[in-house]
Amino acid sequence: MAKIIECVPNFSEGKNKEIIESIIDEVRKVEGIKLLDYSSDTDHNRTVVTFIGSPDRVKEAAFNLTKRASELIDMTTHKGGHPRMGATDVIPFIPIADVDMDECIEIARQVGKRIGDELNIPVYLYESAATRPERVNLADVRKGQYEGFFEKIKEEDWKPDFGPSEMNVKSGATAVGARVPLVAYNVNLGTSDINIADKIAKTVRHIGGGLRFVKAMGVKLEERNIVQVSMNLTNYEKTAVYRAHEMVKMEAKRYGVPVVGSEVIGLVPMKALIECAEYYLQIENFSMDQVLEKRIME
Amino acid sequence: MAKIIECVPNFSEGKNKEIIESIIDEVRKVEGIKLLDYSSDTDHNRTVVTFIGSPDRVKEAAFNLTKRASELIDMTTHKGGHPRMGATDVIPFIPIADVDMDECIEIARQVGKRIGDELNIPVYLYESAATRPERVNLADVRKGQYEGFFEKIKEEDWKPDFGPSEMNVKSGATAVGARVPLVAYNVNLGTSDINIADKIAKTVRHIGGGLRFVKAMGVKLEERNIVQVSMNLTNYEKTAVYRAHEMVKMEAKRYGVPVVGSEVIGLVPMKALIECAEYYLQIENFSMDQVLEKRIME
Repeated sequence: MAKIIECVPNFSEGKNKEIIESIIDEVRKVEGIKLLDYSSDTDHNRTVVTFIGSPDRVKEAAFNLTKRASELIDMTTHKGGHPRMGATDVIPFIPIADVDMDECIEIARQVGKRIGDELNIPVYLYESAATRPERVNLADVRKGQYEGFFEKIKEEDWKPDFGPSEMNVKSGATAVGARVPLVAYNVNLGTSDINIADKIAKTVRHIGGGLRFVKAMGVKLEERNIVQVSMNLTNYEKTAVYRAHEMVKMEAKRYGVPVVGSEVIGLVPMKALIECAEYYLQIENFSMDQVLEKRIME
Repeated sequence: MAKIIECVPNFSEGKNKEIIESIIDEVRKVEGIKLLDYSSDTDHNRTVVTFIGSPDRVKEAAFNLTKRASELIDMTTHKGGHPRMGATDVIPFIPIADVDMDECIEIARQVGKRIGDELNIPVYLYESAATRPERVNLADVRKGQYEGFFEKIKEEDWKPDFGPSEMNVKSGATAVGARVPLVAYNVNLGTSDINIADKIAKTVRHIGGGLRFVKAMGVKLEERNIVQVSMNLTNYEKTAVYRAHEMVKMEAKRYGVPVVGSEVIGLVPMKALIECAEYYLQIENFSMDQVLEKRIME
C-alpha cells in the first residue's frame, strides 16, 4: 500500500485572489500531490488548503507553499477575524494510509527545521509533534497572536523549536504539527433558542467535563430559525462520531428538544462513519479489511 | 479516476488444492489484477474467487480462468452440494469505480462470446446482462443443473446466448452476467427458536412480500444457541442495509425477541455502510465526495 499523508496548511490571505492562487500553485506544481480542497474566508482573511501525497512530496509542497506565502504576505498589515501568528499560520501533517503518527511527527520536525533554517521564520511544533506539554494545544501556542509574539518569543518557555529566537517581522511565526484527522460534525436541534445549544455544547465538550476529544459551541442557523451544536472531533478513533451524536441527543432531552438533523463539514475518513454503522447495526467482529475500497487502495 | 471492475467467478472444484491453485494462478498471472479473496468449500466442492482490475485486465483474467478450469475440471464426475451447471459455473462482472452497469453488460457479452467461440462452451447471460426476462435470475438459469442441461438446452427458450447449441460434456455451461455488488448481512436474534428466524426471513424477503432486493432464510448458530436471519442484499443502493436491519428488528418485536447483533460477511462497498451512518446520524446533504478515501482513489 502506498504511504499517504494529508497536509492542511492555513495561510493568512483570504481576499486577494492573485496571491491566493500564486501560493496554491506551489502545491499544484509538485508532481504526485493531489490538491483536494481549498477555501478562503474573507472575514477571517485566511485560506485553508488540503492536499495529500507521499511523505516526500508532501514535505516539498508544504515547504514551497510556506516559502511563497513568506514572499507574498506581509503580516505587518494583516487584519482578520481568525487568530493567527504568521503568514503561513499552521501546518498539520495527518497520517492517512500506511503511515503512523511517528512518521508524521518526524516530517513535522524536518519541515519545521527547514522553514526555520531557510526562511528564517520561528517555528513551534504542536499537537503530537509538540516538544513540551504546553505546546500541544494550538490555541495555547498561538495565544497573543502575531502582535503579541514580539514579546512572547522572548520568554524562556516560548523559545521556538526551530529558526531564529526573534520574530520574523514580515512573516511572523509558524506552528507545524502532527495530528489525527479532524471531523467537523454539527447536530441540529428543533429549537430556535441559542441558549439551549450553548448549554449542550458546554456539557458535551472536553473543557466542560464532557467527551475527551470534543470541542463544541452553540451556533444559530438564522435561515432555518434553528440552532446547532457545532463540534470539532479532534480524535474520532477515541471519541466516535456516534458517541458525540448520542450525547447531544441525550442532553437535548432535558429541554424537550429533538435532534432534527446533523451535518458533516468537509472531508471525513471513511472509518469515522463506518464505525457509526457498526454501532447502530450492532455489527459483530467487523474488520476494515472487509471494506472493498480499502482493499482496492492496498 | 481509474476504472475498476470486480469479478467473482465460481468454479466447480473445492477439494483438489493443486487444481484450485492452478486455476487461480491464471488470475495471479494477469498484470494489474488484484486478487482480493478466494475460498473453497469442500461440501459444495466449489471455489469462489474475487478479483478487481481495469476492464481489459478483468476480461483477460476471467477468460483465462475459464479456459484453465475447462482443461482441469471434468463435470461428468463432479459432485457437490451447491447447484452448478458448469466447470466455471458463473462469472459476474460488478461495477466498482468510474464504470456503469452498461459497461459491465458489454464486458459480460464480450467474455461470454469468447468463451462460447474459443472454448466451445454454451453461455447464458444473466442478471443485468440477461437477454430475456426469464434469464435474469441465476437460479432460473441454473435450474436442472449440469445433469438436466443436456435436455434443457434443446428447448427453444433455453438456446444459449453464445457458443454451441448443445452441452459441452466435459465443461457443462457457464452463466456470465453483470450485477451490483451483493452484501451478505445477517441479523442475530436473542432466541434459540429457528421457527422465529424462519418466519421473519419469510416476511422480510422479496418473494414473501418484503423488501425488493432481499433474499433471506433462518439459520441456527449452534455454538451460541441463537438463530439468525441470514440475508443477501442484492442491490444495497435500492434496499439499504439499515432498512433490512430495521425491518428484521420490527418483525422480531412480534415475538418479543431482541436483535443481539449482526454480521457483515466478506467484502462490502463502503457506501453500503456509510449510508447506514447517514440514516442513524440523520446527516443532511452528505456527499460521498466528502469521504477522504474516495477522493484519494480519484
